[in-house]
Amino acid sequence: MQIKGKRFQTVWAEGDSVCMINQPLLPHKFSVHKSKNHAQTARAIKTMVVRGAGAIGATAAYGLAQAALEFKGDDLQKFNTYIDKAYTTLADTRPTAQDLFTALDFVNLAMSGKSVASQRRQAVRAAKRYAQNDVKAGLAIGKHGSKLIRDGDGILTHCNAGALAFVDHGSALSPIFQAHKQGKRLFVFVDETRPRLQGARLTAWELKQAGILHAVIADNASGHFMQQGMVDLCITGADRVARDGDVANKIGTYEKAVLAKENRIPFYIAIPWTTFDPACKSGKDIPIEERGQEEVTHVWGAQGRRRASVKVTTSQARNPAFDVTPARYITGIITPDGIFKPKAVKKAHSEASNK
Amino acid sequence: MQIKGKRFQTVWAEGDSVCMINQPLLPHKFSVHKSKNHAQTARAIKTMVVRGAGAIGATAAYGLAQAALEFKGDDLQKFNTYIDKAYTTLADTRPTAQDLFTALDFVNLAMSGKSVASQRRQAVRAAKRYAQNDVKAGLAIGKHGSKLIRDGDGILTHCNAGALAFVDHGSALSPIFQAHKQGKRLFVFVDETRPRLQGARLTAWELKQAGILHAVIADNASGHFMQQGMVDLCITGADRVARDGDVANKIGTYEKAVLAKENRIPFYIAIPWTTFDPACKSGKDIPIEERGQEEVTHVWGAQGRRRASVKVTTSQARNPAFDVTPARYITGIITPDGIFKPKAVKKAHSEASNK
Repeated sequence: MQIKGKRFQTVWAEGDSVCMINQPLLPHKFSVHKSKNHAQTARAIKTMVVRGAGAIGATAAYGLAQAALEFKGDDLQKFNTYIDKAYTTLADTRPTAQDLFTALDFVNLAMSGKSVASQRRQAVRAAKRYAQNDVKAGLAIGKHGSKLIRDGDGILTHCNAGALAFVDHGSALSPIFQAHKQGKRLFVFVDETRPRLQGARLTAWELKQAGILHAVIADNASGHFMQQGMVDLCITGADRVARDGDVANKIGTYEKAVLAKENRIPFYIAIPWTTFDPACKSGKDIPIEERGQEEVTHVWGAQGRRRASVKVTTSQARNPAFDVTPARYITGIITPDGIFKPKAVKKAHSEASNK
Repeated sequence: MQIKGKRFQTVWAEGDSVCMINQPLLPHKFSVHKSKNHAQTARAIKTMVVRGAGAIGATAAYGLAQAALEFKGDDLQKFNTYIDKAYTTLADTRPTAQDLFTALDFVNLAMSGKSVASQRRQAVRAAKRYAQNDVKAGLAIGKHGSKLIRDGDGILTHCNAGALAFVDHGSALSPIFQAHKQGKRLFVFVDETRPRLQGARLTAWELKQAGILHAVIADNASGHFMQQGMVDLCITGADRVARDGDVANKIGTYEKAVLAKENRIPFYIAIPWTTFDPACKSGKDIPIEERGQEEVTHVWGAQGRRRASVKVTTSQARNPAFDVTPARYITGIITPDGIFKPKAVKKAHSEASNK
């Protein structure tokens, strides 16, 4: 992504450091967090300096390569013990993030060399390839998805499935970035996305950097703008897509999908293939994590340049983090290999895996 | 309402003072605001110490009576000039609040006596009657509405249409209070109701005072709880009901109504007759006020015992305050004279007016 005229990715390696955009400070302050060793990288994942499935995966991949680089000596057995420990340290940060394991395994399996030096090289190369695959997937999603967007469209998105959730480009926002580059005039309605406000904080910031017209709206207002004919298209990301095309995503996605259907507005989900879960039969099988109630009872933001929170209720709260949108509300799933009906996504995934 | 074992109304007269619960401090601090003259009362309405259609109306009514009490002397012409000026001061506080004018006219028209003393008595009596009518309407809504609630029900409500929005009891919450008093076990899902969080702040506080089990939820989560079968019934208030049964209410009401229909959950609107607008043909004729964007870009709450706000985005926002729920999504309208289908509410209103 372009930030004040300079090109950035969400996470990248610099020598034996791992650098990432410090997301909890956004949109109030832009800064880069630099981890000097894999333990610091693990800590950055755990404390959510970096978030978003793709971005977490790439950070973990770079973190494991970093462990390979920081090991002193050439004793392969000791090296492997060190790498195993680093794997565990990195994996224990966000135990429910599927991409974390995919990424760590991707790097770990690539380390097949007979010497510390060769395994080190393999780790670094694999981590870089993992990040590059993420970037490529985002671009391909954008290429296919941008065809859905016409000049003058109003687009609604929920949560943040942008460059900040991946290494670059993102899933839901990538078609919007590409349509904008193609010269199409757009207006994006950004659901603020309570409780954690990823829309207001991150999506709005990304659109602002890209110079795309947008407005943050209360989650309550999206139905109204749909009803008024101001939304032509909805695109969101997903946390998991089941074999039957049901989609688990940030809480509120189901609401937007139902409202889109009621107002005859197409509703698309954009995903890299890593989000499709061939082991999950249906949305009914996806457990819904309930997070701490303080995310609802308190709201985080900025006071001047300082992060701060206010308490908004003295009552108890319930805080389901995700919901499941049944396939029948979804017009299509935008993937790096094209746009598919939800029921056809399983077949498309097999074909993509066999390429 | 009962607060720490003591009975309170939202607004009441004490000699020539007007007292009201200081709502911006809730739920973090309970205190009573006392206006010593009608100018202070007008200021309290303007600065939203008191809010909610019914509560604003009663406060204005008491304010005009207060002007009558505070006038010194017995020159009827000067008295009438003073009252006219006080009317304007009170009316100019919230120019879009229909109930303000209804209330001021109710008191003003009652002041027909031939002396200052008799008009003064009439003003005080009329203001008291206006407030009592509000209380009676709330109780009657509760009597009818509580029949819809079964033991063990999960109920969803949006915004605050409770005792704090009226003189007492409220519209949407009154059936819930009465069902609870009847010994029915309930659980209320309280939409936090961004942007101004009246659900999290006021509805949750009222339910807590009444000892009714409840949880505050992000507005995004109501669809999920409906889908999970945990919501048996939705009740909200309204800002205006048109002749065709369309309803304007707090932004997000339309979303909840669509989701309720999709999940086959009955969706009720509770109103006193003052909310029905016989001059308004249809929801399409109701203009939607767009309020300042800082209500979306900032969130108010408490830090310790202090009111404070945090900024949550650096982008522009759009902030429609209300939306229109078409009659076809509404199961019934709960009024002081019974529960009616939206299409039948016009006839019921005529009959009630002719009683």
